[in-house]
Amino acid sequence: MSSHDPIVLSSINSFHIGGSVVRLQGQPRREVKVSANGDARTVDLNGGYFVGQLYAQHFRQASPRSGLPVLFWHGGAMSGVTWETTPDGRPGWQNYFLRKGYDVVVSDAVERGRASWAPFPEIYDGSPLFRTQQDAWTLFRMGLKEGYHEDQALRRGYEGQRFPLSAFDQLSAQFVARWTTNNERTLAAYEKLLDRVGPAIIIAHSQGGWFAQQIAARKPEQIAAIVAIEPAGAPTLSEAETKLAASVPYLYVWGDYCNDHPAWQGYKAKVLLHCQMLQEHGASVAQLDLPLEGIRGNSHMPMMDDNSDYVAEMVASWLAGKGL
Amino acid sequence: MSSHDPIVLSSINSFHIGGSVVRLQGQPRREVKVSANGDARTVDLNGGYFVGQLYAQHFRQASPRSGLPVLFWHGGAMSGVTWETTPDGRPGWQNYFLRKGYDVVVSDAVERGRASWAPFPEIYDGSPLFRTQQDAWTLFRMGLKEGYHEDQALRRGYEGQRFPLSAFDQLSAQFVARWTTNNERTLAAYEKLLDRVGPAIIIAHSQGGWFAQQIAARKPEQIAAIVAIEPAGAPTLSEAETKLAASVPYLYVWGDYCNDHPAWQGYKAKVLLHCQMLQEHGASVAQLDLPLEGIRGNSHMPMMDDNSDYVAEMVASWLAGKGL
Repeated sequence: MSSHDPIVLSSINSFHIGGSVVRLQGQPRREVKVSANGDARTVDLNGGYFVGQLYAQHFRQASPRSGLPVLFWHGGAMSGVTWETTPDGRPGWQNYFLRKGYDVVVSDAVERGRASWAPFPEIYDGSPLFRTQQDAWTLFRMGLKEGYHEDQALRRGYEGQRFPLSAFDQLSAQFVARWTTNNERTLAAYEKLLDRVGPAIIIAHSQGGWFAQQIAARKPEQIAAIVAIEPAGAPTLSEAETKLAASVPYLYVWGDYCNDHPAWQGYKAKVLLHCQMLQEHGASVAQLDLPLEGIRGNSHMPMMDDNSDYVAEMVASWLAGKGL
Repeated sequence: MSSHDPIVLSSINSFHIGGSVVRLQGQPRREVKVSANGDARTVDLNGGYFVGQLYAQHFRQASPRSGLPVLFWHGGAMSGVTWETTPDGRPGWQNYFLRKGYDVVVSDAVERGRASWAPFPEIYDGSPLFRTQQDAWTLFRMGLKEGYHEDQALRRGYEGQRFPLSAFDQLSAQFVARWTTNNERTLAAYEKLLDRVGPAIIIAHSQGGWFAQQIAARKPEQIAAIVAIEPAGAPTLSEAETKLAASVPYLYVWGDYCNDHPAWQGYKAKVLLHCQMLQEHGASVAQLDLPLEGIRGNSHMPMMDDNSDYVAEMVASWLAGKGL
């Protein structure tokens, strides 16, 4: 496989799935300042809106190596763009797994990207949250808080940082607003996605990993494997749910510098406890803790780091070892 | 060419382009009700945000028929999804032009879809607007206002309507929020896109057609042709701008029922006046007014109507006639 091999597809198909029409009635017409320089405009929100759908783009190979597609689920404040081209312009994991011969489904979760979002507070509960560059710098483990600088050239990441820091602004161009109140809508849409394209291999990042670990208890028969890239914690499953989720094989992938960040220490501890419970119920759970393997310098975004193809190869090898 | 031919790509590449980092400073921390059931949370909006970028997905053929990519620009309250699969699941124009051998770039304009949007009113001026199903039903010329019904099965479109009305809910799942205050940001990002991937053929729909007609005066050397599908009006160009824009060849495509809708009567009249001015400055301007060609029943979304491939073929023939 080379990054110059052509990608031969039988189809590229996109769709929205999940959700339903929600109707607003009896809302007063609002005078909304549509523009600071313009007059207020009367806005009538009453009517039907499609709410709770996700967006997916499905690439089918002319000659797939497997009947199982790879589903890519992004993290919080991100969209499916996570898996496409890296911020510094290299082919991302979407391309990698297409060139490996897998069918690939890249999705935008409910409220993110092409999935779209709904009026708030009328339909969505609460307000959107936006991620600043400063938040992302520390949460994505680019470096210490003090290493962030407005001038991209003056930023200082962790020693050995593999994320292409000269493209950090470009990464921030991918950020999307998020709510904290749509988890159930998101899970329901992911279930519908699995019903449509599963059984499938799920490769999920950060918040997407949290969703995947939860869905494993709801749709285990549609999941051939879960690769959780730095999941942002783990759901609290009942005994019965854990039993269901334990029928799925798991690979967890961790980058570097987790010990430098209290939130990541906490997420990782919670996940490792979850893994222990899965294993107690017979699950196959593998940990790819990159620094423990001698691979230093990965950020929270290994699919974008300078060794992204190498990490993808390790994931692909694990899948191959599972016969997938 | 058949819809079963494989699509052979050398690469699938996505990127954000245009825009820059905007910094919010001195904003008071806000107590935001992040969830109706939860406590208010302190939100600090101060920090850097990438603002004004568009998103593009670039499909490159292994053996392109032409050095000129086809750029697909969507309309208001829509995203690049417009050009992908039709709401009733048939291959859309993205696939059609890929199978014709063109490189294809599908973009989401500033503030829409994967392009993302910014805090308002702190960065964006004014409030978002949402499109209800009822608005879209009449504006997209599905039928008379009275023909809309909450129950999809009871909806009655115009006689002979070619839009797959049983998929109208699915169409509404594609809608995204919009602002009315980002035209200059959007134009600037489209200019950057043309600098990167042009010269190019632009196929633009509705509001996208308005943007394309405006950009023709700014980047004529990067535009091999503009196909404007039901543009929502035309910009007001100066004499000097019109002269520049007149070096681009144009094809305008119109569906049916325009005379039944005052807004469309107005848009069309404005566009035809614009065409006249372009022609007075020597432009090649062709009109494909489908009903005048005996093709009845097209809505505002001919790329989704039941004869979408047929209309695409007429567009492709016009391009071929221009040697493109």
